[in-house]
Amino acid sequence: MARINESYQKLKAGYLFPEIGRRVSKFCSENPSAKVIRLGIGDVTEPLSPAIVSAMHRAVDELSKRETFRGYGPEQGYDFLRQAIVDHDFKARGAHVELDEVFVSDGSKCDTGNILEVFGADNVVAVIDPVYPVYVDTNVMAGRTGPADESGRFAGLVYIPVTAENNFVPAIPDQHVDLIYLCYPNNPTGMTATKEELQKWVDYARREKAVILYDAAYERFITDPSIPRSIYEIPGARDVAIEFRSFSKTAGFTGVRCAFTVVPKSLMCTNSKGESTSLHALWNRRHTTKFNGVSYPVQRGAEAVYSAEGKPQVQATIDFYLENARIIRTGLESLGMKVYGGVNAPYVWLQTPNQESSWGFFDRLLTEAHLVGTPGSGFGAAGEGYFRLSAFNSRANVEEAVQRFRKLVS
Amino acid sequence: MARINESYQKLKAGYLFPEIGRRVSKFCSENPSAKVIRLGIGDVTEPLSPAIVSAMHRAVDELSKRETFRGYGPEQGYDFLRQAIVDHDFKARGAHVELDEVFVSDGSKCDTGNILEVFGADNVVAVIDPVYPVYVDTNVMAGRTGPADESGRFAGLVYIPVTAENNFVPAIPDQHVDLIYLCYPNNPTGMTATKEELQKWVDYARREKAVILYDAAYERFITDPSIPRSIYEIPGARDVAIEFRSFSKTAGFTGVRCAFTVVPKSLMCTNSKGESTSLHALWNRRHTTKFNGVSYPVQRGAEAVYSAEGKPQVQATIDFYLENARIIRTGLESLGMKVYGGVNAPYVWLQTPNQESSWGFFDRLLTEAHLVGTPGSGFGAAGEGYFRLSAFNSRANVEEAVQRFRKLVS
Repeated sequence: MARINESYQKLKAGYLFPEIGRRVSKFCSENPSAKVIRLGIGDVTEPLSPAIVSAMHRAVDELSKRETFRGYGPEQGYDFLRQAIVDHDFKARGAHVELDEVFVSDGSKCDTGNILEVFGADNVVAVIDPVYPVYVDTNVMAGRTGPADESGRFAGLVYIPVTAENNFVPAIPDQHVDLIYLCYPNNPTGMTATKEELQKWVDYARREKAVILYDAAYERFITDPSIPRSIYEIPGARDVAIEFRSFSKTAGFTGVRCAFTVVPKSLMCTNSKGESTSLHALWNRRHTTKFNGVSYPVQRGAEAVYSAEGKPQVQATIDFYLENARIIRTGLESLGMKVYGGVNAPYVWLQTPNQESSWGFFDRLLTEAHLVGTPGSGFGAAGEGYFRLSAFNSRANVEEAVQRFRKLVS
Repeated sequence: MARINESYQKLKAGYLFPEIGRRVSKFCSENPSAKVIRLGIGDVTEPLSPAIVSAMHRAVDELSKRETFRGYGPEQGYDFLRQAIVDHDFKARGAHVELDEVFVSDGSKCDTGNILEVFGADNVVAVIDPVYPVYVDTNVMAGRTGPADESGRFAGLVYIPVTAENNFVPAIPDQHVDLIYLCYPNNPTGMTATKEELQKWVDYARREKAVILYDAAYERFITDPSIPRSIYEIPGARDVAIEFRSFSKTAGFTGVRCAFTVVPKSLMCTNSKGESTSLHALWNRRHTTKFNGVSYPVQRGAEAVYSAEGKPQVQATIDFYLENARIIRTGLESLGMKVYGGVNAPYVWLQTPNQESSWGFFDRLLTEAHLVGTPGSGFGAAGEGYFRLSAFNSRANVEEAVQRFRKLVS
């Protein structure tokens, strides 16, 4: 009889966001007149920039004529997009990335999950807690963990807690690990890492021959010029780090779908005989065998993000969300709440008042203020007592949300 | 030190089509004046139908305005597309498929690879030989095989040969297997399966509690009304079969990217304790955790395939390719060649003249006739001595190709 992958049965009942959706749906159906404001899931609200819209229209028109029709594209992405990425995202920042090290994909969530396929089952994996749930769940699915304990921590994973006590700076592990997930600007805390902090991680990875899985999906929100946007701004990172980038939050592509992953050719791992092997070659094999490239009009839209016309348009939308974040952050601070992030990131991370539990605060916020956020404990045990608010909403809703907090807290 | 997934090292050097591309590139650079006609990779050449183009434009415009903007869609696909699929692809054929059993994705190649993640490593897998290489390679990557022998067959897989000797009808295995890949209309042979033949497979799977992975990516090319288009037209199939469908060849979406997979809720597998588990729930967890849905404009384009305006347009393009297939098939038959497929499929499968090897014929066809096809041995050991031609090309090129065959063979 066909047997399932039993590792799935170790997973908790639901992914965090469907559970939030369930509770919100229930509340809304029981309170149809409530005007609920959603600052929960990190989904963009502003339309695509005009340069992107034009580029996508042009590409659709190309597909409508035999002379300009395109079928299968390169699985790794078209060179026009890979070159734009290399020039604008890396070369302009003094970081060395080559065109064939860029793999265009339909999402960073997909890539951070799929990348695990090229690694052996016996690697020791470290995550920062709180953590984007996909890093953990995909390792569980891949059979790299034991069961979860009561707090939701899976046996076999190394959790590195960040809280207000350590100012959200994760400690470099005092044990050996093989794979380390880092996400900066961080989801959920909205905090960033300095060059010095990232250098410590790169040094650790070089020493331990570990691989850093660096998720920079929110790099476009960095306002402080001293904060690195790419791990490849750190000397030595090309030998130890894979970087994930996304157009989802950068350019409002959550429904359009485009992202990319950088695997440097200098990044080597070993097999069980101790032979050195290029991870780039393995990922290329995975990408060409199990993926067929991103939709052509979408790649043209992504290219327009880097155009002379598109760049300021995209930046204007980022600035709009950052101003939302500022309004939430300063508004909550003025109420005496302890608030983190929201300067170089679209997320504000707050401590719940009176040490209330994350889900308790979620339910109270929903029922009393008709506001939806994300319980910190949904991101991991160390997120208990914290709460995430997203800056992705209209200005009016963000201002209204702050007013509702005022009533709730004071 | 971080270790790789060593199963990748069992793979042969390259996926079939990159190797073809390499040889063709080399020939073209050495013979720049040669007018090479490509009937190799199965990539469409005709533009998108007007109804699809209009639908994609409208969707891009929606994303350009705040009021109609859409961010993350449902990972499983929008209901408007899932409902159209259920109604037109299944209900209209008397097959029972429910809306939430349809998972929209960016490609059948991706899905046939990814589906393996929800199955345990210890399942015995059967493939028909010759076979679409992705079925085999993704099982190798997942660690379900031993090394390959000289003919390219991997230890641990069950290969069921189809050749002219058995009229390309695979024998039902006389041993137990857990997973069976079936592809009809078949890639590469272009042959189909009758209701009676499919019923034997369904009966086998029910008896052995096996799962059929049914790839129907080419179903739109079926011209014979008695041939099933879906495995779910066969009684009992809902308990044992997953079906993969694609818009790639149906509607020219190879560069647009849309497909879907049906996992019936009645399909049960077991864990090692013998407990029965819904595969639908597992695939839903995989799909929501590691995938973020298909691009919105692409889903609107796919929906238009089923519209009153789109349906005849799409059919006209299919008919165009089928006429190409007929021209190739009858042209080669008139030269005394042994030719299969090409009636209910866009592929013609031929026996090489004088028992020439597949790659030998490939090289001769390329250098002497400037024609590109696909060597049958690239699809498996039983494909040796065969050759695949694709009907995806302009009418002029197809007619010219037949003329060149005439010179080469006669």
